[in-house]
Amino acid sequence: MKVLMTGASGGIGTLLRPMLHELGVEMRLSDIAEPENGRAEGEDWVIADMCDAEAMHGLVDGCDAILNFGGISTENTAELIHSVNVIGTYNLYDAARKAGVKRILFASSNHAIGFHTRETRLDAEAPVLPDSLYGVSKVYGEGLALYYWKKFGIEGARVRIGSCFEKPKDRRMMATWMSARDMLRLIDRVLKVPRLGCPVVYGVSANDELWWDNSKVAYLGWQPQDSSRQWAGEHPDEPAVEVDDPAIKYQGGGFAKAGHFDD
Amino acid sequence: MKVLMTGASGGIGTLLRPMLHELGVEMRLSDIAEPENGRAEGEDWVIADMCDAEAMHGLVDGCDAILNFGGISTENTAELIHSVNVIGTYNLYDAARKAGVKRILFASSNHAIGFHTRETRLDAEAPVLPDSLYGVSKVYGEGLALYYWKKFGIEGARVRIGSCFEKPKDRRMMATWMSARDMLRLIDRVLKVPRLGCPVVYGVSANDELWWDNSKVAYLGWQPQDSSRQWAGEHPDEPAVEVDDPAIKYQGGGFAKAGHFDD
Amino acid sequence: MKVLMTGASGGIGTLLRPMLHELGVEMRLSDIAEPENGRAEGEDWVIADMCDAEAMHGLVDGCDAILNFGGISTENTAELIHSVNVIGTYNLYDAARKAGVKRILFASSNHAIGFHTRETRLDAEAPVLPDSLYGVSKVYGEGLALYYWKKFGIEGARVRIGSCFEKPKDRRMMATWMSARDMLRLIDRVLKVPRLGCPVVYGVSANDELWWDNSKVAYLGWQPQDSSRQWAGEHPDEPAVEVDDPAIKYQGGGFAKAGHFDD
Amino acid sequence: MKVLMTGASGGIGTLLRPMLHELGVEMRLSDIAEPENGRAEGEDWVIADMCDAEAMHGLVDGCDAILNFGGISTENTAELIHSVNVIGTYNLYDAARKAGVKRILFASSNHAIGFHTRETRLDAEAPVLPDSLYGVSKVYGEGLALYYWKKFGIEGARVRIGSCFEKPKDRRMMATWMSARDMLRLIDRVLKVPRLGCPVVYGVSANDELWWDNSKVAYLGWQPQDSSRQWAGEHPDEPAVEVDDPAIKYQGGGFAKAGHFDD
Amino acid sequence: MKVLMTGASGGIGTLLRPMLHELGVEMRLSDIAEPENGRAEGEDWVIADMCDAEAMHGLVDGCDAILNFGGISTENTAELIHSVNVIGTYNLYDAARKAGVKRILFASSNHAIGFHTRETRLDAEAPVLPDSLYGVSKVYGEGLALYYWKKFGIEGARVRIGSCFEKPKDRRMMATWMSARDMLRLIDRVLKVPRLGCPVVYGVSANDELWWDNSKVAYLGWQPQDSSRQWAGEHPDEPAVEVDDPAIKYQGGGFAKAGHFDD
Amino acid sequence: MKVLMTGASGGIGTLLRPMLHELGVEMRLSDIAEPENGRAEGEDWVIADMCDAEAMHGLVDGCDAILNFGGISTENTAELIHSVNVIGTYNLYDAARKAGVKRILFASSNHAIGFHTRETRLDAEAPVLPDSLYGVSKVYGEGLALYYWKKFGIEGARVRIGSCFEKPKDRRMMATWMSARDMLRLIDRVLKVPRLGCPVVYGVSANDELWWDNSKVAYLGWQPQDSSRQWAGEHPDEPAVEVDDPAIKYQGGGFAKAGHFDD
Repeated sequence: MKVLMTGASGGIGTLLRPMLHELGVEMRLSDIAEPENGRAEGEDWVIADMCDAEAMHGLVDGCDAILNFGGISTENTAELIHSVNVIGTYNLYDAARKAGVKRILFASSNHAIGFHTRETRLDAEAPVLPDSLYGVSKVYGEGLALYYWKKFGIEGARVRIGSCFEKPKDRRMMATWMSARDMLRLIDRVLKVPRLGCPVVYGVSANDELWWDNSKVAYLGWQPQDSSRQWAGEHPDEPAVEVDDPAIKYQGGGFAKAGHFDD
Repeated sequence: MKVLMTGASGGIGTLLRPMLHELGVEMRLSDIAEPENGRAEGEDWVIADMCDAEAMHGLVDGCDAILNFGGISTENTAELIHSVNVIGTYNLYDAARKAGVKRILFASSNHAIGFHTRETRLDAEAPVLPDSLYGVSKVYGEGLALYYWKKFGIEGARVRIGSCFEKPKDRRMMATWMSARDMLRLIDRVLKVPRLGCPVVYGVSANDELWWDNSKVAYLGWQPQDSSRQWAGEHPDEPAVEVDDPAIKYQGGGFAKAGHFDD
Repeated sequence: MKVLMTGASGGIGTLLRPMLHELGVEMRLSDIAEPENGRAEGEDWVIADMCDAEAMHGLVDGCDAILNFGGISTENTAELIHSVNVIGTYNLYDAARKAGVKRILFASSNHAIGFHTRETRLDAEAPVLPDSLYGVSKVYGEGLALYYWKKFGIEGARVRIGSCFEKPKDRRMMATWMSARDMLRLIDRVLKVPRLGCPVVYGVSANDELWWDNSKVAYLGWQPQDSSRQWAGEHPDEPAVEVDDPAIKYQGGGFAKAGHFDD
Repeated sequence: MKVLMTGASGGIGTLLRPMLHELGVEMRLSDIAEPENGRAEGEDWVIADMCDAEAMHGLVDGCDAILNFGGISTENTAELIHSVNVIGTYNLYDAARKAGVKRILFASSNHAIGFHTRETRLDAEAPVLPDSLYGVSKVYGEGLALYYWKKFGIEGARVRIGSCFEKPKDRRMMATWMSARDMLRLIDRVLKVPRLGCPVVYGVSANDELWWDNSKVAYLGWQPQDSSRQWAGEHPDEPAVEVDDPAIKYQGGGFAKAGHFDD
Repeated sequence: MKVLMTGASGGIGTLLRPMLHELGVEMRLSDIAEPENGRAEGEDWVIADMCDAEAMHGLVDGCDAILNFGGISTENTAELIHSVNVIGTYNLYDAARKAGVKRILFASSNHAIGFHTRETRLDAEAPVLPDSLYGVSKVYGEGLALYYWKKFGIEGARVRIGSCFEKPKDRRMMATWMSARDMLRLIDRVLKVPRLGCPVVYGVSANDELWWDNSKVAYLGWQPQDSSRQWAGEHPDEPAVEVDDPAIKYQGGGFAKAGHFDD
Repeated sequence: MKVLMTGASGGIGTLLRPMLHELGVEMRLSDIAEPENGRAEGEDWVIADMCDAEAMHGLVDGCDAILNFGGISTENTAELIHSVNVIGTYNLYDAARKAGVKRILFASSNHAIGFHTRETRLDAEAPVLPDSLYGVSKVYGEGLALYYWKKFGIEGARVRIGSCFEKPKDRRMMATWMSARDMLRLIDRVLKVPRLGCPVVYGVSANDELWWDNSKVAYLGWQPQDSSRQWAGEHPDEPAVEVDDPAIKYQGGGFAKAGHFDD
């Protein structure tokens, strides 16, 4: 099996690259930029821009599956969000269709549902409620994945990633953190389960505080095994001073509080 | 109250224009093209392109509400869909935000949920399942409406229009048809109800066959009063020869069956 | 279109026969017994026993659709229920499959859900809860309809008939009564809607008291137009003396109260 | 059938008294105060205080059913709310139990669910969300009705009354108004349906704008026939200036906005 | 407590027999055939045919509970399915009723819900969707269990068994496998929990991939403790070549793909 | 943080007092009566009666949060239930409001939902169904908590406690038991989670048999770690002799069976 990972120089890509060999598949890595830590021995790199539709055709050629971590990964100008996360994502999907790719993991985001309050339990059927233009672009991407699945049979996973970093950076991430290793386990399942369909998966480790319910995708056989608990000491417990502050009230945190990026 | 209608030269716009005075509000009409039947006496027209962000600022200036019927209204090239229905819609929304517009009716489409089977009853909480890139662009637009509502308080109606024509054109439209007058009644409610929120509304008349359930928006006080029944004679009943033909099986009809537009 | 009606000499068959020409299809009538009121001019009768598998093949030959009102229509001995409603129904379905029949209306019964309390609102997704062995045989028949639909594409309607008589016979039937004319309207829709699937439909008129919710099958375009209201005078209102009497408490009425038939 | 109405001198009682003979039952009327418009010919009045447990025993003696419209009907001091709506209601229920009363209509209120937003559709299963101490006392009363039903078999209707006045007094009541005649129709059903159980019913006419869904109690056979539509001219349409004003945002209107009564 | 196990010579019976003493109850074993591995020391065997109603009366005499694993356990001729799984099951239930049996574990099957897709999460309220005539017979049996529970108070467990073998035989069984020991644990709970009711239980071990959700029967106190994980090496992971092959797409696997048995 | 515990001399208070220092907050203890085992070194006690509104103001002064375990904890006379659990609870809440208290844990009870059958799985959205006047008073208290949350922003936890004793006292408590340590863990979460809202939490340990589903409050990060399993030997398994005995049938056990206390 040949698998393409886009966004391989980004945050998640950088965390995952040293572990990808564990998947036992042939990997191709791509990003618009060279990885900051340099290419590793044996890695198959293609530098390409998602905005370049032609380049996407070459990139996906010969691949069975794609891990689409490429794109803008936080709020940004409308111009960038639209050209990369909307048009760029389309370029990748349509190239994949023409090349006969079978499966695509789409890196969606908790910011597609970021305006739900923290006390709301969300499962795969929860309505979207984006907290940013970035979040809206992920809503677009999830819709695109459904279209390519229903019309062309390309299976997909719409993974609403919480916070995939080395460790939680603030108190909110105690609930949203996803370890790179749990992401790897999820990728393994998405690539190898006999039938995938096109489910919503919440990308989060087995943290003590959980906002999201993955029980509807138990058929994937994915069990996260890490927890933010080990960093509890760095992010002490205490009730918020202002529980109605949007950064506290909503799952999207600071994204839900921020003004419009272009202003 | 000053209300802008975009797409005023399009199909729905042309049907609605002669009735708009019944709303009792001051209207501004806009489209990228002059209306084929010419401007009527007393109409306030602004020709403008949604792709032109600057033009949008001028267009929305002084408006309290927008009826956004502009944009590509059927499947088309990816380039057009993205530049008009994605970026153009964003241009309009962000101009509206800066101008202090209070409410926007977003003309979404049944093609945002077109891959549900005909025997599936959909209400406002049904998951999207777009049948076309056009449908995906409507998913984007619905997400945009939610973002501007939750973050900036712009109320919206996400109206998933069935088939708003003078009369049903084929057997499928016996279920999906919406009269222009029922659309006018809905516009009246969307503009004038004390509090709107940001609901999904299915834009359909009181046809005998109904796939969509508007009971969750009964707070709007909207009751469609027309029915496709009067044209039953033109579209005779009979079971389909191939009930699994995508054009028959899915609510999106021909959109669900068609190949990719750009091919 | 050629349509077979089984059970044509039974209660519902006798009520419907004079109206069947309104369907505008070619009818074949069948029962194990001659109709008590004699064959009418122009009726195409075949006397046949559902328990006779061979006879069923001949019976269904050349038919596009079947209205299966045949079988035991009330509680009876286990032997009769099993031989007719289970094995006989199977015989009919399997003959239909071999003959290429496209659609079958299966006359199920409220006794398949008769142990729900009267204050429970049931829709098409309500769990079965049979009040009699007769009711269990209808659960079997509904299962059979699903099997032939999913595996062989034979569309079906699982019509849980309330009380289809000339008029309500007791106070309970004020809620469960279905007029023959509303049944005819339903048959028309089941035969002619472009795509049927295999829905549960509650066979009941537009009575004032309603236990069952048909909103999930609004896609059929069926609106019952009669009501038990006209016989309100014959079945006066009053609270039951014993509201926990099974005949009052449960939707199945006397069936829910009766002992085991074979005892 | 002998039926007691408490609160017969209050607003709803005064509206209903001239129509009660239409129920065809023997009525006893009670209130803590004489009716302002004087006793009518033939009315059977008992002046009694719900806070007086002994008096309640005499009051309910010989009654088959109770229409409990007594109590404080708007926000008030905690002392009054507790002594009348809590303890007084208990006094009445427990006297009813000892006297063998079979059914009680409990006049609950929309203020038991008043903190739901206007765009939220509520049915009989919606969670309570009281907007006032008065609303909390209605939550208590609904709980009491359930207790007496499940443990002692006293059937009940928990009627969450909207605004039962001669006509709507403000724009909000266009959605919440209930005509006295629709209330009478509901009382008739509650008294006479064979089996009642203990349902939640929303007491509201067939207004154009509707926040509440009574479909789960269709078994009662109650169809409201009036509508606030006739007073549309007195309460003109227009979007609220401040859609997040609690009086606009929440179903409870002014109750949701008011401060604490005792302050 | 005296407990009868039918089908004791069958696959599951053979796996369970050596462990049954752990239940601490007195067992009676029955089958139509002698066990292939011979009767063990101290086993109380009765050879009997479920089709023989008289024999069933003798068989159940003196038993408090029944573990009904008897019957045809895979697709077969309509004649066998009906005579054994329908009529035979009825014979057993009605004999149990007359003998005063209190509880019956009914061995239902995943083939009663086999036409749900693999990506559909099913819980106890999921609608049936049989993939075979065998599956339809299990739908009948589940209905029968409900009837005897509601009318005669015989508690039951409708156990939709996945694949109860010594170990998984193919890749699909990695999701559906149930160990004999987990079955024994379930039997223990079904026999001994204070109140059982008549729940649907999915008979499956704690496998990594899970299609079924038993949370609604947590009141049983049953926690499966085995997992198919230990045989992962024998059934390697890989995406199916044809994900829409019925054997892959549907939970029933090969049953969903097979033609009609009698053809 | 300064935290008040009321009911500190009661059953739960007595179990918790030796562990409260683990919370790392400053505690104030209160009850109407001195603790039977005497005040411990360093405890800050205030003897006060919830029925004394004035006393409540002094009691809550300076507190950030309240653990309200005060009140009558079992069925009792209507007079006591109303004066303490209704009026006394109100006194405490309103004093808390005036004093600026931020959070209140309200000790509700399983008797607020005690008339659900044992085989019914309840989550935070389950309707109340009180089994006693005591249970009704808890319904009142839960309503009060909602009112103070929505109107005044006081966050709350409505903890429906099962059976918080040193160990299970009977077979039923094998399902309902909550260890004091699991209660302490829950208190810790309720006090310290960044945003609490006003959820329903079922107060129960991780017993084998579970009737209640806390998945909707996973955002609290509370995982009970004890289980009644260790006392299985004291409460042996066996099916109940009378499964329809209210003490067996309903979750409230003996409360559901008992007559009216005041009789």
